Amino acid sequence: MAVTGVLRPGFVQIRVMDLKEAIVHYRDNLGLEMVSKDGEFAFLRAYDEFDRHSVVLRQAEEPGLDVLGFKVISDAALADFVKRLNEMGVKTDDIAAGDHPGAGRRVRFSVPTGQVIDLYTEMELSDNGPMTKNPDVWREEPRGMRITRFDHCAVLGVNIAASAEIFEKALDFVVTERAIDPDGNPVAIFLTCSNKAHDIAFLAGPADAKLHHASFLVESWNDVGHACDLIAQRNISLDIGPTRHGITRGQTVYFFDPSGNRNECFAGGYQHYPDNPIREWTVDQMGKAIFYYEKEVHDRFTSVMT
Amino acid sequence: MAVTGVLRPGFVQIRVMDLKEAIVHYRDNLGLEMVSKDGEFAFLRAYDEFDRHSVVLRQAEEPGLDVLGFKVISDAALADFVKRLNEMGVKTDDIAAGDHPGAGRRVRFSVPTGQVIDLYTEMELSDNGPMTKNPDVWREEPRGMRITRFDHCAVLGVNIAASAEIFEKALDFVVTERAIDPDGNPVAIFLTCSNKAHDIAFLAGPADAKLHHASFLVESWNDVGHACDLIAQRNISLDIGPTRHGITRGQTVYFFDPSGNRNECFAGGYQHYPDNPIREWTVDQMGKAIFYYEKEVHDRFTSVMT
Amino acid sequence: MAVTGVLRPGFVQIRVMDLKEAIVHYRDNLGLEMVSKDGEFAFLRAYDEFDRHSVVLRQAEEPGLDVLGFKVISDAALADFVKRLNEMGVKTDDIAAGDHPGAGRRVRFSVPTGQVIDLYTEMELSDNGPMTKNPDVWREEPRGMRITRFDHCAVLGVNIAASAEIFEKALDFVVTERAIDPDGNPVAIFLTCSNKAHDIAFLAGPADAKLHHASFLVESWNDVGHACDLIAQRNISLDIGPTRHGITRGQTVYFFDPSGNRNECFAGGYQHYPDNPIREWTVDQMGKAIFYYEKEVHDRFTSVMT
Amino acid sequence: MAVTGVLRPGFVQIRVMDLKEAIVHYRDNLGLEMVSKDGEFAFLRAYDEFDRHSVVLRQAEEPGLDVLGFKVISDAALADFVKRLNEMGVKTDDIAAGDHPGAGRRVRFSVPTGQVIDLYTEMELSDNGPMTKNPDVWREEPRGMRITRFDHCAVLGVNIAASAEIFEKALDFVVTERAIDPDGNPVAIFLTCSNKAHDIAFLAGPADAKLHHASFLVESWNDVGHACDLIAQRNISLDIGPTRHGITRGQTVYFFDPSGNRNECFAGGYQHYPDNPIREWTVDQMGKAIFYYEKEVHDRFTSVMT
Repeated sequence: MAVTGVLRPGFVQIRVMDLKEAIVHYRDNLGLEMVSKDGEFAFLRAYDEFDRHSVVLRQAEEPGLDVLGFKVISDAALADFVKRLNEMGVKTDDIAAGDHPGAGRRVRFSVPTGQVIDLYTEMELSDNGPMTKNPDVWREEPRGMRITRFDHCAVLGVNIAASAEIFEKALDFVVTERAIDPDGNPVAIFLTCSNKAHDIAFLAGPADAKLHHASFLVESWNDVGHACDLIAQRNISLDIGPTRHGITRGQTVYFFDPSGNRNECFAGGYQHYPDNPIREWTVDQMGKAIFYYEKEVHDRFTSVMT
Repeated sequence: MAVTGVLRPGFVQIRVMDLKEAIVHYRDNLGLEMVSKDGEFAFLRAYDEFDRHSVVLRQAEEPGLDVLGFKVISDAALADFVKRLNEMGVKTDDIAAGDHPGAGRRVRFSVPTGQVIDLYTEMELSDNGPMTKNPDVWREEPRGMRITRFDHCAVLGVNIAASAEIFEKALDFVVTERAIDPDGNPVAIFLTCSNKAHDIAFLAGPADAKLHHASFLVESWNDVGHACDLIAQRNISLDIGPTRHGITRGQTVYFFDPSGNRNECFAGGYQHYPDNPIREWTVDQMGKAIFYYEKEVHDRFTSVMT
Repeated sequence: MAVTGVLRPGFVQIRVMDLKEAIVHYRDNLGLEMVSKDGEFAFLRAYDEFDRHSVVLRQAEEPGLDVLGFKVISDAALADFVKRLNEMGVKTDDIAAGDHPGAGRRVRFSVPTGQVIDLYTEMELSDNGPMTKNPDVWREEPRGMRITRFDHCAVLGVNIAASAEIFEKALDFVVTERAIDPDGNPVAIFLTCSNKAHDIAFLAGPADAKLHHASFLVESWNDVGHACDLIAQRNISLDIGPTRHGITRGQTVYFFDPSGNRNECFAGGYQHYPDNPIREWTVDQMGKAIFYYEKEVHDRFTSVMT
Repeated sequence: MAVTGVLRPGFVQIRVMDLKEAIVHYRDNLGLEMVSKDGEFAFLRAYDEFDRHSVVLRQAEEPGLDVLGFKVISDAALADFVKRLNEMGVKTDDIAAGDHPGAGRRVRFSVPTGQVIDLYTEMELSDNGPMTKNPDVWREEPRGMRITRFDHCAVLGVNIAASAEIFEKALDFVVTERAIDPDGNPVAIFLTCSNKAHDIAFLAGPADAKLHHASFLVESWNDVGHACDLIAQRNISLDIGPTRHGITRGQTVYFFDPSGNRNECFAGGYQHYPDNPIREWTVDQMGKAIFYYEKEVHDRFTSVMT
């Protein structure tokens, strides 16, 4: 395969303080499909995803990111990644198959910025996923924000260079964009395992183990606008948008789930290839880098994290 | 790298019967940048491509496809592909570096359906490509059809299964969609080497070595509509569109260059991953497969090729 | 008021052969709101309309247009229109208030091409219409084809010049566009009573009292595309589209209701002012006039009418 | 005519401090056509307007609004307006034909909030206006922000009720939306003379004779986004956007010309009819009224005026 190794961010497990309220948000506002509910867990899926679920909500005392899961193309590739992680001194643990419904064995590790990452190769296909025999564009008209898929997370921590290095060296991710301070230290690193402009982003922050946002793909700038209409009409807590990123060129809107976890709906962004030059930003241009139109970043965007 | 092996369709070399007229079409209608002209050759590039050129026009007696070039990630990968091609009985030839301005060595072979394919690893970067230091979304406002990149070709021939097999077995392409006749014979095979829904398509046809269309990416359905406005206002020869494909879900318009080569502007299409099921079409649904809205294919689309 | 006299096409009454099936189409496919059902009549409304209803479906043996209703700004204006109609020899009848639920008195007349036209000044406001106190963009996310309003009808008949003359001379409509055959006879006349490119269209046809289509407004080219997706996915009978008109410049898709009445979803079109020149088309350019992209008209479009 | 009396805002005359620089902005950024230059005056026109010019720039010491011109349907209507203005105690002056190139006689008056208003019935047609014989959608691909027309102005002053009353009582404008403070005083009044959601807006402000913004129409939300891309890439001074208004529902971006005059590009907004209820806003909801997404207004928007 020309796309190999890590395929994509396959699921995100988010802590929410009121599971019922969170289900309403992710199902009715984002427009995800409710797949199953199991005690303190809820499992959801976007209409254009084949796998059983991509969003896991867990009832908890505090919001935040439990786990970010990446699907790997094969057990052989997974074994190789484990070997390389261990060789880099990254300890891995096994999560048994069935820990999540429909999901196979997962290999778990933590990055220096404190986030928990799972690698896995198996998840049941949804029986309501995209059609494959003489398929229609969708089974039913998309609703809510018309999310097509869970796309990526941006996470925060102190030593983002060390976390990014693990994704680069052990997992074959490629840096697409990077922002550097005058001393040469990275303040933001965007990495991809595909043709997407980013599959994970590390942002320098004051504390580790933090989630900046979980991001969901929509089809177009038009659907970003529609998401904004819904956010306004339903009094969802807006962070910023509609706007465009300098980094990735994605068209975007940020808002909060009822527990305060930041969500993003975004569209566009360029196609990346590993022979493309890295795009580099200087900190004096971080406003433009983050919000291409406004050219400045508001405090909430840099200070609110879960 | 998680994207490895063959990166993408890197250039297409098209035969045109009046080079001057063809340059006007590809530069002013499609909105490509004219890079250089060298005797019977012209080299052009879309604004969002890093490499020096992606479209080569050659003055010739007849229209058609000279060569479809695929960029490979490394010399090691290229050597491996050559070995595997040769092992499959596919003869390869070397084209020396510099045969095209700014281009490295190319390895050339032909597929059973008669098309000539080049593999290569090196091409100079354009000095007018996408910005990489605190980049803007583009250097100058896109014009014409606002093409962002050369995307793929669809080619015709008799034994498309044999051609597709070479891309699968020797070059690690993955079949994304396939249309099958009642006897189980493929009438259309779509393959990708990336997250795109297709990087090359083989269509069953009565003659070999034929081009169905060269396809160019635009950002959105809105830009497909704008391309149609230009086609109408400038009296460019329309084939069909705006419409949507069932296969790939791309939004599309087809038209002809002044020599009769079919061009496509398209947007959208899903992101493909190698763990996704193949989408399969039956020939009784080929109308829907090809033109999702019309659900039927007009004669010109199946009979005109170059 | 600067907009005075006839305000707009206020309702259309369409004959359908299966009321239940028709309700499903207009409510779920077009996305209209079901207002009330009363025997052989059903009343519906688009989400962005203030008046109680704008679409009336009547169970009948044959499809077609029962009545096209125009709302008039005041009783004084209505009385003046009646006087002028009568002076032109056009007989008017009164329909008592309450004949339609929530509707006031209507004045009815027929045009030489056989269509029945109602003029009226009063209709109850919907209690679910657009918000007026600190309003949101809509009360609920639009669904189906996301129709914002009933927009206009195009009707067919022999002596379209005579029908258009009544709208011009008695009702103060203005001709915006006109297509003329080599003998100077009109083959299509588009008239407006507002800033819209058309509020009614007369098309020359072999028979009188015919409906070509009832047209519904959507917000954008994007929503025209969405309507096409729905048409394809739900196997609604497509006529043609997505495409653009030369006349009015509207972006459009045509399809049929279950009884064979042609519907249109359209977006865009210019703003018209009475000091603008008339736009004129010659019959050799009727292809471009009707379908700006295709530049030709298919038989079904000119031969199928109800 | 059903659209009668005042037709539309026909031209705006704006003071600029560097005419050359201003021409570059309005011509290349907004994408207007340069019509003529005459000493301290420059005349421009949007591609979809029939009249000779709609934007007049005047070299001056200070930025701001010189005159807002409204085209009237007939001399009889103009004479009636003058009579009614004078009866209301509004003094009118005559500007002779030819004072602006290609323009007829204008009647000038001032409103209590200090703005100068011209009424006129005659202006030469542009020889490069929209085509009228078998017309294309445009003569040449729109460029820059792809402005289709000058649309309206919002102006500031102390006694906006008095100014609005003149437009209502003497000129037959209709109030479409209104924001009221707890004492019942209007803080914003939007009026239309057409089917547009507004043709002029009065905003309560601390000083008279002020311009809040001159607004230009674009086709779609997509073109609002494109305008934002241009604003960012060309370092045009952004005020706010892309966003949506609660009032009018228009999709919008605000920015400044080189002299500090605020410009708006906007799309959408509902169609208004004089039988529609007035939409009313309370001051506690002014954030939502003005910026539907952000639900708050930044200081610059309320304090910067010219």
